[in-house]
Amino acid sequence: MQIQKKFKIAIDVMGGDYAPVNEIEGVFLAAQFMKKKLNFEIVFVGNEDLIASHLKKYDFSGVRYSIFHTTEVITMNDDPTSAFKNKRDSSIYKGMELLKNKEVDAFLSAGNTGAMLSIATLMLGRIKGVSRPTIGTFFPTMTKNPTLILDVGANVDCKPQFLYEFAIMGEIYYKLMLNKPKPNIGLLNIGEEKTKGNEAALETYTLLEKSNINFYGNIEGRDIFKGVVDVVVCDGFTGNIVLKFAESFLNFFKHKVKSYAEKSLLNKIKVLGIKPTLKNIMKGFDYQDYGGVPLLGVNGIVMISHGSSSPKAVQNMIFRTIEVLEKELNLNIENAIKNK
Amino acid sequence: MQIQKKFKIAIDVMGGDYAPVNEIEGVFLAAQFMKKKLNFEIVFVGNEDLIASHLKKYDFSGVRYSIFHTTEVITMNDDPTSAFKNKRDSSIYKGMELLKNKEVDAFLSAGNTGAMLSIATLMLGRIKGVSRPTIGTFFPTMTKNPTLILDVGANVDCKPQFLYEFAIMGEIYYKLMLNKPKPNIGLLNIGEEKTKGNEAALETYTLLEKSNINFYGNIEGRDIFKGVVDVVVCDGFTGNIVLKFAESFLNFFKHKVKSYAEKSLLNKIKVLGIKPTLKNIMKGFDYQDYGGVPLLGVNGIVMISHGSSSPKAVQNMIFRTIEVLEKELNLNIENAIKNK
Repeated sequence: MQIQKKFKIAIDVMGGDYAPVNEIEGVFLAAQFMKKKLNFEIVFVGNEDLIASHLKKYDFSGVRYSIFHTTEVITMNDDPTSAFKNKRDSSIYKGMELLKNKEVDAFLSAGNTGAMLSIATLMLGRIKGVSRPTIGTFFPTMTKNPTLILDVGANVDCKPQFLYEFAIMGEIYYKLMLNKPKPNIGLLNIGEEKTKGNEAALETYTLLEKSNINFYGNIEGRDIFKGVVDVVVCDGFTGNIVLKFAESFLNFFKHKVKSYAEKSLLNKIKVLGIKPTLKNIMKGFDYQDYGGVPLLGVNGIVMISHGSSSPKAVQNMIFRTIEVLEKELNLNIENAIKNK
Repeated sequence: MQIQKKFKIAIDVMGGDYAPVNEIEGVFLAAQFMKKKLNFEIVFVGNEDLIASHLKKYDFSGVRYSIFHTTEVITMNDDPTSAFKNKRDSSIYKGMELLKNKEVDAFLSAGNTGAMLSIATLMLGRIKGVSRPTIGTFFPTMTKNPTLILDVGANVDCKPQFLYEFAIMGEIYYKLMLNKPKPNIGLLNIGEEKTKGNEAALETYTLLEKSNINFYGNIEGRDIFKGVVDVVVCDGFTGNIVLKFAESFLNFFKHKVKSYAEKSLLNKIKVLGIKPTLKNIMKGFDYQDYGGVPLLGVNGIVMISHGSSSPKAVQNMIFRTIEVLEKELNLNIENAIKNK
């Protein structure tokens, strides 16, 4: 019998909008779900007393865990660079240090993404050959597979070389996560033709075209949900705007339903009748389901998730972390970058 | 009694995906709707025989119209610059010439937007003080008013000065169309803080902040549907991607409904039951309702609309054109640019 590898995962329990509740409950859910196959051990990083008081609420028997006490918190409003300099006893700083010193295999946070990015890059360094670490997100599509879009905000001004490297990292991540040997990559642009787009897009097209990536060509905004390609490459300015815009769609839809219901009693009754069906239809629009995403290109497995992550999202982030560790994401990125 | 001004409007009937059917039917619908208040006269620009054969299908009695015969067509695949050079007897070229020579008050097309933009700019020239003409589109929001987003594709690489001028033109257009004296303007960005964004956004923020525009500050992708601001300014690369992405929401939703229905007979029945209600709820998501938009910043009223424009969209484009003419859009833009 093969001996199952056990991973040690540190989680920032001070970062998310509902910290530490959702983080601790998310870990609990993940452990419960895995039961006897439990192959991780958790380090809760944050205020000791706070963590202890919340841990009491759950039955953590059978789960190996420890608490790493920290006294500071990097908030959503903290500037990443000054947070790195001035909050050295924060959960993010200390968690990253645990990872750097190889005391844990991965570090997770639903906290300040900018701070996670900066501190990870500064402390862990970049994988050899990577100019800029990047963050990608899965979007639901009309096909059975999601589309990975990257960058979604880590790099606002992108040289073509950065976009080219995002394509390579995206290809590897998609390949490993979706078990698709040769995912195709599209460049987000304003037209299909090679001659379309801004300066960065035009140059990136040329780079991708002559690479050995499975390059589909340009795709447009309307092609994202169609699932025309597996991986969409764009600068982090465009990607961040598209991501936040997409996330608002569900709320807009809910608002439309609500306004309709408010027009008359008859409408209200109609809406009550269709709500359960609507809920089923809209499944998959909820970005919570996707959990966390890795920061691609840094020396270490760093997972980040939405500030408003639910316990279920935290649970999914843990599952994704284990998958990323088992599949040796970073070793694969290193090799891919080396060979291109 | 005030004598009502009559406008002469030229329409390209060779341009849209359903040309000339939807264009001619759209004109017919607009004339029918206005009945005795009819204050426009139409010049159909395109192949004479084709137009004549389609005109027969409608009762155009009481409508003043003429046909301007052209022999060439600029297709969606034509490169704008070479179309300008080589297709001088095309409906777009000739329609624009009619406008330039003041034989008509406005020129409308659902054809190749890039060609419309280039030919209008080259032939009519820019309003004094305008660096780049721009195209804006209205987005539905959760408030009672739509949001105007510009640029949505006319200018992919934008200097801060361009974005600043888009803000001025957007302010005027929104003010006139929505009768709002001082609409507020947001800069589309990846965070609320002044320090967020790419280089162009950072510089534009400074320009807008010290202008006498009602500048709200940065808005994010999630704020568009919320209707946080009246006018959203962005470069045409981002704007075009966001627009096409938004346009795909309705299809994605329809796809979700369809997949749900296909899962079982019970689901199919459920969907049949809720379809009429859904259709009502989703009203306003359909971008066809908004009709055409003016090309802002050129010397002349040029209206463009989606290639797939329905007859109703063409009708709405005519109504919007009349409004733009009555409210003297370009005179207002000229004054606003001069005074800023």
